[in-house]
Amino acid sequence: MIITLKDGSTKEYAQPMLASDITKDISMGLYRNACAVMINGKVEDLRVTVDSDCDFAVLTFDDEQGQRAFNHTASHILALAVKRLFPNVKFAIGPAIENGFYYDFDCEKPFSPEDLTKLEAEMAKIAKEDLKLERFTKSVEEANELMKDEPFKLELIAEHSAKGEEISFYTVGEFTDLCAGPHLVSTGAVKAVKLLSCTGAYWRGSEKNKMLNRIYGTAFPKKSMLEEHLEKLEEAKKRDHNKLGRELQLFTTSDLIGQGLPIMLPYGARVIQLLQRFVEDEEQKRGWQLTKTPFMAKSDLYKVSGHWDHYKDGMFVLGDEEADDEVFAMRPMTCPFQYQAYLNRPRSYRDLPIRYNETSTLFRNEASGEMHGLIRVRQFTISEGHLMCTPDQLENEFKNCLELAIYMLKTLGLYEDVSYRFSQWDPEDKEKYIGTAEQWEEAQSTMAKILDHLNIPYSVGIGEAAFYGPKLDIQIKNVHGKEDTLITIQIDQLLSEKFGMEYTDKDGSKKNPYIIHRTSLGCYERTLALLIEKYAGAFPLWLAPVQVKLLPIADRHIDYLYDVKAKLEAKGIRCEIDDRSEKIGYKIREAQLMKVPYMLVAGDKDIENGTVSVRSRKDGDIGASTLDEFIAKAMAEIESKEIK
Amino acid sequence: MIITLKDGSTKEYAQPMLASDITKDISMGLYRNACAVMINGKVEDLRVTVDSDCDFAVLTFDDEQGQRAFNHTASHILALAVKRLFPNVKFAIGPAIENGFYYDFDCEKPFSPEDLTKLEAEMAKIAKEDLKLERFTKSVEEANELMKDEPFKLELIAEHSAKGEEISFYTVGEFTDLCAGPHLVSTGAVKAVKLLSCTGAYWRGSEKNKMLNRIYGTAFPKKSMLEEHLEKLEEAKKRDHNKLGRELQLFTTSDLIGQGLPIMLPYGARVIQLLQRFVEDEEQKRGWQLTKTPFMAKSDLYKVSGHWDHYKDGMFVLGDEEADDEVFAMRPMTCPFQYQAYLNRPRSYRDLPIRYNETSTLFRNEASGEMHGLIRVRQFTISEGHLMCTPDQLENEFKNCLELAIYMLKTLGLYEDVSYRFSQWDPEDKEKYIGTAEQWEEAQSTMAKILDHLNIPYSVGIGEAAFYGPKLDIQIKNVHGKEDTLITIQIDQLLSEKFGMEYTDKDGSKKNPYIIHRTSLGCYERTLALLIEKYAGAFPLWLAPVQVKLLPIADRHIDYLYDVKAKLEAKGIRCEIDDRSEKIGYKIREAQLMKVPYMLVAGDKDIENGTVSVRSRKDGDIGASTLDEFIAKAMAEIESKEIK
Repeated sequence: MIITLKDGSTKEYAQPMLASDITKDISMGLYRNACAVMINGKVEDLRVTVDSDCDFAVLTFDDEQGQRAFNHTASHILALAVKRLFPNVKFAIGPAIENGFYYDFDCEKPFSPEDLTKLEAEMAKIAKEDLKLERFTKSVEEANELMKDEPFKLELIAEHSAKGEEISFYTVGEFTDLCAGPHLVSTGAVKAVKLLSCTGAYWRGSEKNKMLNRIYGTAFPKKSMLEEHLEKLEEAKKRDHNKLGRELQLFTTSDLIGQGLPIMLPYGARVIQLLQRFVEDEEQKRGWQLTKTPFMAKSDLYKVSGHWDHYKDGMFVLGDEEADDEVFAMRPMTCPFQYQAYLNRPRSYRDLPIRYNETSTLFRNEASGEMHGLIRVRQFTISEGHLMCTPDQLENEFKNCLELAIYMLKTLGLYEDVSYRFSQWDPEDKEKYIGTAEQWEEAQSTMAKILDHLNIPYSVGIGEAAFYGPKLDIQIKNVHGKEDTLITIQIDQLLSEKFGMEYTDKDGSKKNPYIIHRTSLGCYERTLALLIEKYAGAFPLWLAPVQVKLLPIADRHIDYLYDVKAKLEAKGIRCEIDDRSEKIGYKIREAQLMKVPYMLVAGDKDIENGTVSVRSRKDGDIGASTLDEFIAKAMAEIESKEIK
Repeated sequence: MIITLKDGSTKEYAQPMLASDITKDISMGLYRNACAVMINGKVEDLRVTVDSDCDFAVLTFDDEQGQRAFNHTASHILALAVKRLFPNVKFAIGPAIENGFYYDFDCEKPFSPEDLTKLEAEMAKIAKEDLKLERFTKSVEEANELMKDEPFKLELIAEHSAKGEEISFYTVGEFTDLCAGPHLVSTGAVKAVKLLSCTGAYWRGSEKNKMLNRIYGTAFPKKSMLEEHLEKLEEAKKRDHNKLGRELQLFTTSDLIGQGLPIMLPYGARVIQLLQRFVEDEEQKRGWQLTKTPFMAKSDLYKVSGHWDHYKDGMFVLGDEEADDEVFAMRPMTCPFQYQAYLNRPRSYRDLPIRYNETSTLFRNEASGEMHGLIRVRQFTISEGHLMCTPDQLENEFKNCLELAIYMLKTLGLYEDVSYRFSQWDPEDKEKYIGTAEQWEEAQSTMAKILDHLNIPYSVGIGEAAFYGPKLDIQIKNVHGKEDTLITIQIDQLLSEKFGMEYTDKDGSKKNPYIIHRTSLGCYERTLALLIEKYAGAFPLWLAPVQVKLLPIADRHIDYLYDVKAKLEAKGIRCEIDDRSEKIGYKIREAQLMKVPYMLVAGDKDIENGTVSVRSRKDGDIGASTLDEFIAKAMAEIESKEIK
């Protein structure tokens, strides 16, 4: 049996070997850090037996999959600690997640911060005990008997058995869990653990089920790594748009209105207005034609587009199909609406490409548990667009869409943070999509060719395509490391046929155009969230809701600053005056906290000299200046959209 | 018995007299023109007997109520003509309307244009016959017997009798109709009739009922008056936004999307974008703070505001109150959403007035039959705003709102077409409103005082108030003479209490602010419709979707005009090039039909001299000009928002 290692070297064994023994044979040092192994590209437990030729790699905490096994073991250690300290608790599930793990428990009351501290101590003890984790499998009957007091596990066993899956368990100390693994060999490696919070979570994420108590934690092989991570978390918390955005009075929410429906306060609404105008104007310059289409339509439209069959659960439906003559639904996408604009007149090849853009509001019926600040919401507004073109034009127009998106990202300073994902269909799950396998293969190979031509470095996301075509997604991580799609560019050759969209080609024949679905900045709420986090609220001057704060040192300087205000406003500079009878230091601190880019302070000397004393948010006091000088500098900074 | 005439003079009679005889006694000439009479302010039939002292006025075709009686008689003449020519038809209702009448018939197929011509001829014959109209009353039993073959009339008799109303009939020739009158004395006066159209109409306006055939007509005492009216109708038809707006590619509709949900095509979307930016910028200058609040909310919000009790039928509701945990509804108004922004922080008297504006999209569940082009729609976007202030600030802020509205109307050239209506509650219909009679009297007298101070000339609309307060409505008529509200300014002292909106007054006490609800330009779809009709599609330069059309005389002039296009676009001037190989005359005619303000034609001489040949939509050829000269003039016209 020949084992091929990552570096291409090989090892030969005469008989089957445990993966752990092969690892030890490679290096004892590596074995001590091993979390799992990768055999022929598949992540496996160190406990598996290798009995034939294979590619073999050892995964440590530095590998994503190794880290997952590490965190998964940490979650079992947490469960064992809970079993020891809270013996009446029932166990649900406890997976690894990015940067940590959680476990859901069914218990009478949530775990208090003191409980978490005790559990951490118990987990440290379990790590010191260096308990072995043991894997075994059972028949369904035996599994049911073993888990007879754990109702959630019984439900999971029934599911596994229905799918004909192997039913495996891991035991660590007194705790045995239904689990597919992989896991570390023993608990000793999990040296540094922090339990971060306890929140409510529905069993299997559904509001119809019981509310459980979820403990989130993070674990590392070294204390210094944990400390570094906690520091990063602390910084992320400070930048978290859902906290900072409220403090800066950018947005708020209301229980009366409901979850996922943020209210843009004047400062937030201003930033979004500025972004929307910037996008609309840039798109106009690049040959896009604005439309303004309705936010709702009869079910008839969605039946043609396929949304009724493929997306209905995500839509807000108005009325009852059984009882009402007409059933409407709020739109989850703009596509079929802009197609109606295309269909308004006969089109010729000479009219193409037709590029429709829209500042489009969309509605998605997200479950209550999935809402998050401005990132995941039920209503959002997006720089949506659809471009109809001939096959010849496709690549160039795709490139133009991508260039526009990159220009937007660069202008906002977000470009360095994004990555590309080529989202493809899942041939194993054909019902999720319209069109045939041949059509998908063709669309995807067209897109692959374009991406390769344009030298776009991408990862592949199987099953991440839209139901009508493949996508290039521009991905970005928020301050907590969670990745979301910000911008998407899609190629679609199916919907134009469904909607009877045609153009007359040179030879007089009727053809269906290609459609590019795209956003140029994505959804404004999400972009605002990312900008808040990127700049910790300190927006570039052109986007700052208040660009200049005017601070009189004493009441007698107020009138002078009202004149200054009028002059700034005449130039379109957004400013506020703080005319309260507070100390100047207090006013400056407050303006600084509100991240106002410039403060103009005025005292006796300023009035005498006709100047203002300029403070910048970044550099503090930068000295006296005439108003004209200040205005000229500020206007230049605004017009260049400079990021300081 | 003393009869007091309009001019204050009196007539005395010893015994009861027919109104017609009194009229004859005043003047035989007046009698010949009499349509009805007004006795003590009540419109009556000329057939009534006057038996006590009263104010007495004769109504002719020149009086609105006289014209109604005239048209009502014309509708009976139409019914008689239908009875003669189409004996199997069943009769529904036939009222007078503004500028005419209609009658709804139940018959197997719609009336063809030829049928209408025949009916017109028959109506002329009936006028010549000068048949008397006779009035009589019946008991319910007799009435049912008389109308036993007319199912619609039987339904109406049952209703009248249920309300205890008198059941009266009018006979003209062989046609007897259930009817409350009043009517002319005889058919001879109805000398000039035109039947305009035949359309489908549900019995009683409900889709659940049978579809009937409605004939619309218009009638006059003189042929010249009819001709003049038909000319006006012809002109109105040409300007009708629902026709012209589609021809100019401003908007379209789609059966798949549904009624009342217009699709703004690029030209229309551009005009609306320009209007919205103009309004938002002007509001910002005047101290309004933009918000952007969600388009939907949980029912909880509407329960507090009163919309759930007073406006639910007009709302699109998502979900089922019985079955779902959360029920959402699309918003019909912005008020309670902007209140949540106010409630975001504690407020002091020093913070007031707080002026929130929003480019706000609203949704109203209008019945299918009520939709009309861009005027009555299910989704619209409006320049909405709410202003929270102290009692001291109320009058001045109201004045500011009104001045803003007037500024908008003047800029758009609509000011001369509007009138003011003071919309009050209806004390007879208290359930329609929240608040007590005392609160309504106070709010209305406050508003009356303000309107009188500001010297606003208004009519009063009883029962036209919002459910929470009185309104100043700025009314405007469309090209067909139908009046709608364009702008509204409302005073509300009820909702701030319901929502717990407070401010801390100088003395430290908590108070509820006054709220002014207002629009500054009303709803953009409606404004666009009015502008199309006002200007017959020829928008002022600043609003024209295409400002300049570039017309090469031959293909060799195209490149030159692409350079011109780039220079115009660099200045933000919207232009299109017509590079088809068509004759220049054809291109000019088409640009003229599309109402493009300026055409720049280029030929050999222009290229030689570096000029463009300018044509204006209004004045035709205005000679050659350098491009810079043209740009300077056009920019000045745009910046001044000149109406030519």
